[in-house]
This record gives sequence, structure tokens and C-alpha cells, in this order.
Amino acid sequence: MQTAVDELESKGKAARNAGRTLAKLSTTVKDRALFNIADALGSQQDRILAANEKDCDAGRQGGLTEAVLDRLLLDAQRLEGIAADVRDIAALPDPVGETLDMRTMPNGMQVGKVRVPLGVIGAIYESRPNVTVDISALCLKSGNAVILRGGKEAIHSNSALAALIIESVTAAGVPRDAVQFVESTDRALVSHMLGMKDAIDLIIPRGGQELVHRVVAEAAMPAITGGIGVCHTYVDRAADPEMAVEIVDNAKVQKPSVCNALDTLLVHSALAPTYLPLIAGRWAEAGVEMRCDRRSLTVLGPSESPHVVPATDDDWGTEFLSLTAAVKIVDSLDEALAHIETYGSSHSEAIVTEDYSAAMRFLNEVDAGAVMVNASTRFVDGGEFGLGAEVAISTNKMHARGPMGLRELTSYKWIVLGTGQVRT
Amino acid sequence: MQTAVDELESKGKAARNAGRTLAKLSTTVKDRALFNIADALGSQQDRILAANEKDCDAGRQGGLTEAVLDRLLLDAQRLEGIAADVRDIAALPDPVGETLDMRTMPNGMQVGKVRVPLGVIGAIYESRPNVTVDISALCLKSGNAVILRGGKEAIHSNSALAALIIESVTAAGVPRDAVQFVESTDRALVSHMLGMKDAIDLIIPRGGQELVHRVVAEAAMPAITGGIGVCHTYVDRAADPEMAVEIVDNAKVQKPSVCNALDTLLVHSALAPTYLPLIAGRWAEAGVEMRCDRRSLTVLGPSESPHVVPATDDDWGTEFLSLTAAVKIVDSLDEALAHIETYGSSHSEAIVTEDYSAAMRFLNEVDAGAVMVNASTRFVDGGEFGLGAEVAISTNKMHARGPMGLRELTSYKWIVLGTGQVRT
Repeated sequence: MQTAVDELESKGKAARNAGRTLAKLSTTVKDRALFNIADALGSQQDRILAANEKDCDAGRQGGLTEAVLDRLLLDAQRLEGIAADVRDIAALPDPVGETLDMRTMPNGMQVGKVRVPLGVIGAIYESRPNVTVDISALCLKSGNAVILRGGKEAIHSNSALAALIIESVTAAGVPRDAVQFVESTDRALVSHMLGMKDAIDLIIPRGGQELVHRVVAEAAMPAITGGIGVCHTYVDRAADPEMAVEIVDNAKVQKPSVCNALDTLLVHSALAPTYLPLIAGRWAEAGVEMRCDRRSLTVLGPSESPHVVPATDDDWGTEFLSLTAAVKIVDSLDEALAHIETYGSSHSEAIVTEDYSAAMRFLNEVDAGAVMVNASTRFVDGGEFGLGAEVAISTNKMHARGPMGLRELTSYKWIVLGTGQVRT
Repeated sequence: MQTAVDELESKGKAARNAGRTLAKLSTTVKDRALFNIADALGSQQDRILAANEKDCDAGRQGGLTEAVLDRLLLDAQRLEGIAADVRDIAALPDPVGETLDMRTMPNGMQVGKVRVPLGVIGAIYESRPNVTVDISALCLKSGNAVILRGGKEAIHSNSALAALIIESVTAAGVPRDAVQFVESTDRALVSHMLGMKDAIDLIIPRGGQELVHRVVAEAAMPAITGGIGVCHTYVDRAADPEMAVEIVDNAKVQKPSVCNALDTLLVHSALAPTYLPLIAGRWAEAGVEMRCDRRSLTVLGPSESPHVVPATDDDWGTEFLSLTAAVKIVDSLDEALAHIETYGSSHSEAIVTEDYSAAMRFLNEVDAGAVMVNASTRFVDGGEFGLGAEVAISTNKMHARGPMGLRELTSYKWIVLGTGQVRT
């Protein structure tokens, strides 16, 4: 353990030093590094997939859940997707040096802001190896050094990806210390990392509730809270039922293992008799378990289906991360809003409606990272929102909220260009 | 104490409820509340000044330093200045509801951000009664409720100002619970307040190092660190000496009790023989004590003046808040940058130079809330930067940096306007 701590400390110092250089690097060099990474993800595909197979085999033997195994898995298509994200990030404007709100004051002084990197980002994540690449690419482009600490389930994949990234960026002229990968998966090391406030400016946990709560409780530096998505879709009385079937089905089924997937379906009582059988039919095909409140059970009638079961109190506010959904009938938009306020995790919330006023009230009154009308919550994602990728989906209100991309990894400084002005 | 804790808890709940209403209030109502406050500061001047006199008398008897007494003092002119700030805030655009970065994605979905209030702001401050008004006004306009806890030195002034504010906003139709003033000045109550993370979204300490460090150590909610300004002005070899005298003198003398006043003067060795006697002459008139390093003492020659004394190691990095300045000769811009990196508090740093490259390097390389060329650090202030006033000057890099105005009291949410889009 002491060796691992010493190594982590020296990685922290190295990252801090590299960060100073990175902050001043030209966009050209940073983009070249990103293209090198994207190219290497293609040319070194076999090496990465072989490493990933080791992790997946170990995970299967270790009895990981399907949701975790799905997050762990890499294949050629997913690697191509990751490489495409890296190229998208390269194509985005460099946030560093962007001048904001520059203006000339009455005394002739020019006052404005310039975007600057935060410095060193610490990332603690679990089983998704794509996080290694996404976070590295976003940190590089935004001029931040990064210290990566992935979960033990993905250690072979992450280690291979980190080696690929470090080779690729070094070849482009980026300091090799800009990306630090922590090889040790000793859990006690995380506590040490969370205390390194001189080395790390912002810590980003990407993982389940336990990790997020641990980071919030222990981190000595600012931390982003996120990744826990208890997401509701409210099908209003004025919803188009067919659109609502497509949106709700997509939100639950398209990738159930992720934080922006639907957890609770709220349906207006006036539409429930029409709508619930439609979605139940669709979900029966997909194998979605519906955990229904008393009223929606009544609407769905005596069901032979093993997929329709009574909800328990614990189902409201649960992030399922699987083909399970809680289902509840409400009598009004107000009741839906109150339910979301009580049980939501401020992540992603959607309404399906053709009623303009209901849509506007939902947008205004729901307090969450992303609030949507007539679209699937699955879109709440850095890539889908045009950020290239995301370091996290923040459920904080401070600094950054929702999908965090390049800008959200920056701060700013005020600059003043004077000609001798003094204050009177 | 238990009574005070119970009262504080109920103020927290009341503020949270009022915050929900405030978030939806129209700009018209909020501005009317601000104009009412500004008007009342004029019409109730006698009442406020009488309360302030009680505090000032008690302070003088209690042996408060001149710096604290100056921060405490209100007079007709200062009250007019505070009222003018409130009117300036009313005249600024309402940040709430501002739409940012709205665009249409390739699938036709519109994605963007809307600014929203943070919720409830907690302010803990010391002896400046103007903070009561400035923070209330900024919180109101930005749709946030506020819980104010001022120092015991200013309790009569703050209590009178808070009563004036609450009357004024209530008359305008703002919920009276939007502004909560904590009457008890029991120091133990601050610890309780710092634990109220369910009631308070952001805590802002405005005061000295002890307060700021206590908040950082104890706060369970996000906190802004700020207000500690160890500010340098570097007079480069290419400075215009006369401009440098005006800027440096202004930065030190115009209001020495505040955080953006000059603490350390750095002078390039090539200009020191010309420049130091000029500024020493000016400062002798003003009564500024110069704490000089060995080399600058040599340049100034054997001095009879009680105002020129040798510096000790403790003087570098000290925030003097009085007519005292540390003075050091450096041999290069690099040496100045290194000194600022070591001893600065990331608040406000300035260079005086006619050398373009030196100016650009200083702007790029100094890591601080505000970096200035050829202007006095005294300008680093929400009012001077066009923000109307400021809740604090942040030396954090997360969320907000430098003077914090209306925008810095907001968060945003992503909004998505769809027409039935699902993710494939």
C-alpha cells in the first residue's frame, strides 16, 4: 500500500507540472494528440479487445450482473464509436483562451474574461472502459491534466487504453505526464486520492451510488456529483399515445444499463386506459418488468404476464439499470411534478404532451439537469448534446449541470487592459 | 442557544419555500422591490445612521482597529452609494430565464440551456453593513432567497437594514421570507448554519482569513472561498514611471482596508533606481510604511523616514489591509511571475508596462481571479466591472471566479424541445 501511495503522490506532482505546460499548448498540438488516439483505437483494436476479453471473462466468472458486463464490454463497433467521439472532440472549438463578455468601461478600460483550464482533473470510475478515453480526450482538449483511477473489473482494458493514450499524446508533443493512470485497484487508495487537494482541482466520480456518496463524503477538493439518474417520463393527458409509446419504450429499452434510462413512468389517469395497454404490449415483447401502483394494475387488468407486478414503496426513486420500470397513474400535471420533486435525482425528466401550457410548465418547474418535451431521456448525453463526449452528467447545481463537456472543464479569469486608469 | 438554533432552522425552511416562489417571479416585481429598497435607503437614512452610530461607538470603545471601523462606518454618502448600486442592479438584465446556446440538432430536436436561480444563498459576513444590502439585492434579482448572518460589530446597522429590506420587498409583492436575517450573533450558531445543507445551496463567507478558513473546513454545502487578497503590482522595466506611480499609489492608498488593495510592490531592477524614489516620495506624503527587501533598501539609501523599514519573511504573502506595503526588487518578469505564484492568493494581480510581450505573458501566465495591465487593482470589484455590485470576490476556480454578480448566483438546466425523437 505504501508503494502505491507514493506512486500516486508522484503521479499527482507530475500531473500538476504537466498541467502548467498543457494550459499553454496550441490547439494544433492538442488536436494532433486526439487524432493519434483515434487512429490508434483502430490500429490497435486487437490488443484492446484482447485485454477487454480478459476483463469480461473474469467478470463472468466473478458473477458480475448483466448490467455491469454490458458496461464493461468493448467490441469493434464500440471502439469505433469511441474513436468517433475523440474525432468529434478534436473538431470542437478549443475552449481555452476564448474571450467572453469583453467590453470597454466608461473610463476606457477594457474588461472581460478569458477561459482557462481548471488544472488537474481526477477521475474515479468503475466498469466502463470508454470513460478512460472520453475523459482523457476532453481533459486534453480543455488543457487539463488528468489522473485516471478505473475500477478493478476493467483493469486490463483501462491499462491497455491508457498506454495507447499516453503513447499517442507523447507522439504529438503533449507532455507524457498529462495523462496519469493509477494501476493499483486497491480501494484504500481511493481515500488517499480524495485527500490530494493540492494535486487535484476537481474530482469526478463516474459510477454507482456507493462511489458517488463516498466521494461526496471524503473528497477534500471540489467534486462533481452525478451519474445517479432516477428518470421519470410523464405521459400527459394530452400526449399523442403512439409518440408516447415510442419515447417511453426507447427511454427504457434502448440501453437500460445507463443513468439516463427511464426508471418511473407516470401516466395521466385520463389517458391511462388507452395508453397503459399499448406500452404494456410493447414492453411484454422487450421483457420489461412493470412494477405498477394499485391503479395502473387495475387498468392493466388481471394479468397472467410475469412482467406486470405490484410496485412496492421502494420502487419509487429507484434507479433500476435494468429492464424494470415503476409505473404510476397520476391525476394531474401537479401530481406528476410533485412526484418528480420527491423522487427524482435531478438528472433527466421528460413530459410527452401536445398541450403547450403543460409543456411550458414542465420545462419551467422541474428542477433537473435536463428537462425535455417529447423526446427520450436517452438523449441526455454529451455526445448527443453536441459536446463530443462527456466527463460526467452532473446533478450538482454549482459549476456545471447535466452533461459536462469541454467548457465545463474550464474556469475563467478576468482580464483588464488599461492605459493607466486609477480608481477615484 | 437552542432557541437560536430552532429559529435558524425555521428561517432555513422559510427561505427554501420562498425560493421556489422567487424563482418564478417576474422581473417587474423583482425590480420594483429593488427600487423600493433604494428609495428607503434615502428616506430612512436617519434611522440607519443612528443604528450605525451605535455600532461605531461600541466598536471604538471595544478597541476595534481603524481598518475595521472604516469598514463598519456608514454615512450619507456611503448610503447613497449603496442605493445607487441597488438601482444599478435593477437596471441590469434579469439573468433568470436567459436561454443559452440553443440550437437544433441534426434530428430536429432543439437543445439548449436556461439559466435558473441556485435556490438559497447563505451569507456570513463581518463588519461591513453594505454587504447586507448588496447581497440581498443581488440574490433578489437573481431569484434566490438569502439567509444573512452578519457580524456582531455591525448588528444594529445590519438589523436596521434587514428590516428596511424586508419591508421594501414585501411592499413590492416579493415573499417576505425571501430575505432572512439572523439576529443572534452567537458564534456557535455559525457552525450550525454551515451544516444546513438541505436549506442552503451555496454559502458565501465575506470576511477575514479566520472566517473563510472556518467556512471551508466546516461547510457541508458548496462554499465560495474569497475575500483574501494578497495583491501584487509589478512595475516592469518598460513601465512608464509616472503612470506606475499613479497606479501603485492608487492601489495602496485609495482604500487600504479592502481586499483588492496592493500588498506587495515588485519593481524591476533596471527601473528601481528611477522608480523607487518617486513612489517613496509619494507614499511618504500618504504615510505608507514601505517594508523593503535588502536591495530596495539599498536603492532608497539611508533613510531617516520612519516609513521605510526592512521587510521580514512574513511580509511576503501578507494581506495588510492598512497603509503598509512590502517592496521587492526583481531581475526579470519571470522572477515577478514566480513570486506571485508563490505568495499571491489568486485574487488580483497587475503589471505596469509599455512592453507588449511582457503584458501578454503576464495576462496569460498569472493564475488569478483578475489579471490586469496598466490599471489599479482597486478596480477589481463587481460595481467597477459592470456587475452592479458583488456577493463576493471568489478566489475559487470552480463555478465563479473574481467578482461575483447576478450570473454567478445562477445555475442552468438543459432543455430539450422534441417532436417525438428517440435514440437509435
